[in-house]
Amino acid sequence: MAHTEDQYLLTVNAGSSSLKINIFKVTTDLGLVLNGSIQHIGSDDCLFLVTAEKGQVLKNTSAHCNSLAEAARLFTQWILSDKVPVNAIGYRIVQGGAAHRRPERIDAAFLEYLGSIQSLASTHIPDELEVIRIFMETFPEIRHIACFDTFFHSSMPAYAKYYPLPRALRAEGVQKYGFHGLSYEYVMYHLQQEHADEANGKIIIAHLGNGASLAAVHQGRSVDTTMGMTPIGGLMMGTRCGDIDPGVLLYLLQQKQLSPSELDHLLSHESGLKGVSGMSADMETLLKLEPEHLPVAEALELFCYSIRKMTGAMAAALNGIDTLVFTGGIGEHAAVIRSRVCDGLQYLGIKIDAQHNRSSMLISSAASTVKVRVIKTDEAFMIAHHMLRFS
Amino acid sequence: MAHTEDQYLLTVNAGSSSLKINIFKVTTDLGLVLNGSIQHIGSDDCLFLVTAEKGQVLKNTSAHCNSLAEAARLFTQWILSDKVPVNAIGYRIVQGGAAHRRPERIDAAFLEYLGSIQSLASTHIPDELEVIRIFMETFPEIRHIACFDTFFHSSMPAYAKYYPLPRALRAEGVQKYGFHGLSYEYVMYHLQQEHADEANGKIIIAHLGNGASLAAVHQGRSVDTTMGMTPIGGLMMGTRCGDIDPGVLLYLLQQKQLSPSELDHLLSHESGLKGVSGMSADMETLLKLEPEHLPVAEALELFCYSIRKMTGAMAAALNGIDTLVFTGGIGEHAAVIRSRVCDGLQYLGIKIDAQHNRSSMLISSAASTVKVRVIKTDEAFMIAHHMLRFS
Repeated sequence: MAHTEDQYLLTVNAGSSSLKINIFKVTTDLGLVLNGSIQHIGSDDCLFLVTAEKGQVLKNTSAHCNSLAEAARLFTQWILSDKVPVNAIGYRIVQGGAAHRRPERIDAAFLEYLGSIQSLASTHIPDELEVIRIFMETFPEIRHIACFDTFFHSSMPAYAKYYPLPRALRAEGVQKYGFHGLSYEYVMYHLQQEHADEANGKIIIAHLGNGASLAAVHQGRSVDTTMGMTPIGGLMMGTRCGDIDPGVLLYLLQQKQLSPSELDHLLSHESGLKGVSGMSADMETLLKLEPEHLPVAEALELFCYSIRKMTGAMAAALNGIDTLVFTGGIGEHAAVIRSRVCDGLQYLGIKIDAQHNRSSMLISSAASTVKVRVIKTDEAFMIAHHMLRFS
Repeated sequence: MAHTEDQYLLTVNAGSSSLKINIFKVTTDLGLVLNGSIQHIGSDDCLFLVTAEKGQVLKNTSAHCNSLAEAARLFTQWILSDKVPVNAIGYRIVQGGAAHRRPERIDAAFLEYLGSIQSLASTHIPDELEVIRIFMETFPEIRHIACFDTFFHSSMPAYAKYYPLPRALRAEGVQKYGFHGLSYEYVMYHLQQEHADEANGKIIIAHLGNGASLAAVHQGRSVDTTMGMTPIGGLMMGTRCGDIDPGVLLYLLQQKQLSPSELDHLLSHESGLKGVSGMSADMETLLKLEPEHLPVAEALELFCYSIRKMTGAMAAALNGIDTLVFTGGIGEHAAVIRSRVCDGLQYLGIKIDAQHNRSSMLISSAASTVKVRVIKTDEAFMIAHHMLRFS
């Protein structure tokens, strides 16, 4: 499949229980050649799947894989054994601290720096570092590029970026970074390509997946976002609670005697849709169970209300809204969630066309003063796009 | 001053460092007869001030007073020695749990119950209980009425009331209660009296004082508010941080090794305007220092932005806004803060008239589709008003 003169870019995207890779061929544009994923990491029954550009399945096996590092080794072994061409590797990295936001080439000094800021994202950075090290050891001769999920938000003004906490904490990196940046960058890239007249307007992007956040964008720049220093903040999510009255946490610590790590687990893994509904299920399942199951109905109502309120807050950050974009797994596929989020935002000029919401990518009605769109996000493309500047 | 057949109602309002009392005479309406306060409690130099209805100063002395309980004793001694008539006493109480929100008569069983829910407001209830006990011991024969700051918000729907936390926590009272309820009730009472046509509309009330919150009111009922289970949540305040990414708190606990009580102190007393500006000063002082002092300017910008964003969120809760009311110390007196909060909310139809903002109580311009008002709040009147039903 490879000609020696062709350039192939590998992108690596580590989630909490999955590792995804994509390979793009550099032509006049970026052509997706291959995508692979190892899912359900940590369970006994991981799925190792690779498909080629036209959908041919190259690999579909179950694998035993307990960690992201093991998943990374499975990928490197497969790339070597199948002689898959790779000229550079780009990584999605959650957080580079206040000083590292722009994509950059990874070297030993950078790895050391990333290790030094682990405490800013202690649940993500150690795993990401291990994954990078495994790919770098296997492919020591090629370029390795770091792409941060915080980059898109580096334009946020001071009043949106700092917390109302003692100033001294800023020096150690306590501030809002915002996340889902590669997804937001892709949405803006897509708007610039396809709807250039809207791309400079007042845009709210709702990235709704298992993690979820909103970004307020004006003239192509992020002016605010719901997530903060960590991905637990902002909106209610699949298993995370989002921003909350700190008094509730103090109650859990002081009155219920939870330890900090128990509190972390409760807020990160037992809250959100899971905490309220009482079940671990994806959005499709929750929507099916809703009519029979009051806690599920309540969880979905809270979820949509949280998004609606924070959309209101983002509209205030922008002093208005011209375009609302839904993206991410839930944003792209759950028409009923989109519809419920928008029902109550008529005051902003938002009106959804029920038919379009089921079948189109432009889902606002003709009477809507706000364009409401669904855009399929593509973080891997955005990583590869950044890598082009390092060739 | 008293005729024996007249009814006099005493209201008691305990703050964090002040105790205020008011006496109302029951006529066809409620006439304020006297108001007293003991301020700077805990300092060496407390101010004990009592003025009568026409402004005559009855008492203006410095006092030594280390706690709210001592302040309560100073008041009871003064009431007895000056033979001030009192037929019933009403108390502002921060929190009565989920089951006690409506004003009610205080008896031994109620005091025991209030003691049992201390953990829901551990910084307020113990002091309030002591104050009540001192007045009850001194005046055992009269009625004592509890008025809760959470009452006004008992109409909040489930989706605005519950947190995206594990459901089981609801059973022990973990939910949003909302506060400043007596202030909001007074504002709504005033609107009904003076601007009845607006009172049933979509109203956002900004109670801005050292503590600050917003309420979204529709058809006279609270549908959402920024404060939650405790008064630390919601907006950035004088010394409190408001709602925040829980990951920041986990960072302070896990990486900085703060104990829960150190964290409580930092979030309740060292954050907000004080934390960002680096100084303990009232709004008037901060506004004077602002031109020369960047941290003060930043603190004020964050404060106004926080209010603006949450006004946007409350507008989403209401699907629009007809009236915006400013109240509380800052809301009533700081015209420049009102102006900055509103500058950026033009998309809601809010337009301030600069001249009116300096001198009137209706501060929106003729072109504003939203009426913007300043209303002087009166919690004591509201307590006395509730007490009338118990006579």
